[in-house]
Amino acid sequence: MSLQEFLTSMRPAVESELQSVIQSSLTGEYPELRSMLTYHMGWEGEGAGTDAQGKRIRPLLVLLSAQAAGGRWQRALPAAAAVELLHNFSLVHDDIQDQSPLRRNRQTVWVKWGIAQAINAGDVLFTLSFLSMQRLLESLPAEEVLLSSHLLQQTCLRLTEGQYLDIAYEKKSDLPMAAYWPMIGGKTSALLSCCTELGAIAAGADERRRAAFREYGDSLGLAFQVLDDWLGIWGDVGQTGKSVESDLSSGKKTLPVLYAIGRGGRFARRWAQGPILPDEVPDLARLLEEEGAYSYTLETAQRLTDKAHLALQQAACENAAGEALVELTHMLLRRKN
Amino acid sequence: MSLQEFLTSMRPAVESELQSVIQSSLTGEYPELRSMLTYHMGWEGEGAGTDAQGKRIRPLLVLLSAQAAGGRWQRALPAAAAVELLHNFSLVHDDIQDQSPLRRNRQTVWVKWGIAQAINAGDVLFTLSFLSMQRLLESLPAEEVLLSSHLLQQTCLRLTEGQYLDIAYEKKSDLPMAAYWPMIGGKTSALLSCCTELGAIAAGADERRRAAFREYGDSLGLAFQVLDDWLGIWGDVGQTGKSVESDLSSGKKTLPVLYAIGRGGRFARRWAQGPILPDEVPDLARLLEEEGAYSYTLETAQRLTDKAHLALQQAACENAAGEALVELTHMLLRRKN
Repeated sequence: MSLQEFLTSMRPAVESELQSVIQSSLTGEYPELRSMLTYHMGWEGEGAGTDAQGKRIRPLLVLLSAQAAGGRWQRALPAAAAVELLHNFSLVHDDIQDQSPLRRNRQTVWVKWGIAQAINAGDVLFTLSFLSMQRLLESLPAEEVLLSSHLLQQTCLRLTEGQYLDIAYEKKSDLPMAAYWPMIGGKTSALLSCCTELGAIAAGADERRRAAFREYGDSLGLAFQVLDDWLGIWGDVGQTGKSVESDLSSGKKTLPVLYAIGRGGRFARRWAQGPILPDEVPDLARLLEEEGAYSYTLETAQRLTDKAHLALQQAACENAAGEALVELTHMLLRRKN
Repeated sequence: MSLQEFLTSMRPAVESELQSVIQSSLTGEYPELRSMLTYHMGWEGEGAGTDAQGKRIRPLLVLLSAQAAGGRWQRALPAAAAVELLHNFSLVHDDIQDQSPLRRNRQTVWVKWGIAQAINAGDVLFTLSFLSMQRLLESLPAEEVLLSSHLLQQTCLRLTEGQYLDIAYEKKSDLPMAAYWPMIGGKTSALLSCCTELGAIAAGADERRRAAFREYGDSLGLAFQVLDDWLGIWGDVGQTGKSVESDLSSGKKTLPVLYAIGRGGRFARRWAQGPILPDEVPDLARLLEEEGAYSYTLETAQRLTDKAHLALQQAACENAAGEALVELTHMLLRRKN
C-alpha cells in the first residue's frame, strides 16, 4: 500500500470519527453551539469542504505511526481524533489571541460569533479532545488509555507554555535565538511528537520503540516549522498559499529574523527601528540572505530533517506503513522548490 | 469529628494538593505564567490570602463525600484538586466573557495580563485539572481513575453548554422559565454533582450509592443557585457581600425575574422596556414580590433543599462525615435571614 492508498482509507475514517465524537457528546439541544464546531471543522457553513478542513496531518500521523509500529490503524482512531480536536481548540483560541479575521480563507469563529462564544467553543473542543481519548477503551487496555491521556495532557501543557511565550514575545523587539526553540517546541513539535508516540502506544510498542517514534515526531515538527519560517520569507507564494511578504512585515519572530538579530548587523539595526513596511520587504529579504540567515535556516531545517529520518529508521518500521511515513516525511519537508 | 474539625484538616490539605499539582506540572522556566495562576488562586500578588482563595466548597464536598461514603478522604485529594482547578479555569474565562474587572475584590487575570494571556492561563488551569486527576492512580485502580476522568470530562461539557446558554441569553430580553434549568444545571449543579459523585467513586461506593451522592450534589447545586437568585434581590448586603441591587439592575436572568416575565404582568412590561435603573430597584423588587416571584423562588429553593437532604439520607452515611455533610448542607442552604 502506498502513502496515497493509506490516506485514501484513513482520511474519511478520521472525519467520521471526529463527527461521531461531536455527535455522541453534544446533546442535540443547542444547534448554534454545534454549528460553531461544525463550521470551524470545515464541515458546514460558507466555504465548507476539503480546503476548509485542512490536511488533517496530525491524525494521519497517529494512524500511520500505529500501523508502522505493527498495530492496526483503525484502533488508533480515537487518539487520532483527540489530537485533531486539541489542535483545533488551540486554533480557535489562537485566532482570538492574534485577532485573526480569517483562517483558511474563511471568517474565524470569534468574528462570526463574538469573543465570548469563541472562547467557549474552544473550551468545548478541548473537552471533546479528552472525551475522544476515552473511546480508546474499546480497543486498548485501561493502562494504555491512561498513558495516552496523560501524554495528551502533558502535550497540552507544552502547547500552553508555547502559547504563553508566543504572546509574551510579541511585545519584545529583541530576543535571543535561544528563545526560539522552546516556543516552537511548544507550539509545533510537542503535538507532532505526541501524535507519533500515541500511534506507537496504540500499537503496543515497547518503550524503546515509543522513544524512537516520539523523537521522529519531535524532529519532524521542528524541521517543518523551520522550513515554514524559511518559506515565509523566501518561499513561492503559490506554494505556501500565503503572502510571502507577510512574515517580515507582520513582525513575526522567525528563525531567520532571530538569527540576524543575534548577528547585530544592518538587518538587526533596521528591525530595532520598528515595523517593516511592505515595500521594504524585498530589500530586507536580500539583506537577511547576505547576513547568512538564508543558509543558516536551510541548514538547520536539513539537520532536523536528517534527524527525523534517522529516528524513523530507529523505529524500525519494515512494512508498507513505515514506507508511507518516509514518503510523508519527504512530502512535508521538501516544500522548497 | 464535627464539620469544623473536618474543615480544619481538609482545607490546608486541599491548598497543598493544588500547589503541588501546579508545582510539579509547570516547569520553572516561565515565572510570569506561574504568577498568573498563583495570583488567580489567591496565593500571591495584591490581596492574596484566604478571602482571595474563596471557600473551596467544591473540593471540600469531594473530600467529605469520600469520607461519608466509607473511604479515606486523603485518597480523594487529587479529585478534589481537579474540580477546584476546573472551577477556576471556568472563572478565568468567565471573567473575560463577562468583561468583569473584579473577582473577590481583586483585579481579574485579563485586566492584569490582557485577554490573550488570560485565555491561555485558563487553558493551563483546564489542563492541570485533568493532570491532577491522573494523580488518583497512586491510590485508586486504573478503571476508577478512568471513570473519574470521564465524569470530569462530561461535567466540563455540561459547564460549556451552560456557559453557551448564559452568553446566548444575555441578548434576549424575554426567556421562558424552562430556559432557566439547563443554564443553572450546566453552570452550577453539574460541577457540584460531579464533586459528590467523585467522592463516592474514590470511596469505592457501588452504583446505587454513587447515584444517591450524584443526586445530592445536583439538588444541592440547584438549591444553592435558586437561593442565590433570591438573595440577589431580597438578601441582606452584609450577608452576601455583593450589592443587592446588582442582580436587578445588571439584567441577570434569575429565577424570580423569569417567573415574573412568564406571568406577563407589570414587572414583565417594565422589564421589556429596557435596563432597570438603580433607583427603580426597590419598587421593582416590591412589584416582583406582589406578583408572587418572592414566594415562588423561596418555595422552589425549599423543595430542592428537601430533595438534597433526602438524597443524602439515601446515601446512608452513618458516620461523622455524613453528619458533617448534613451540617454543611444546612450552612449552604440557610443563608436567608
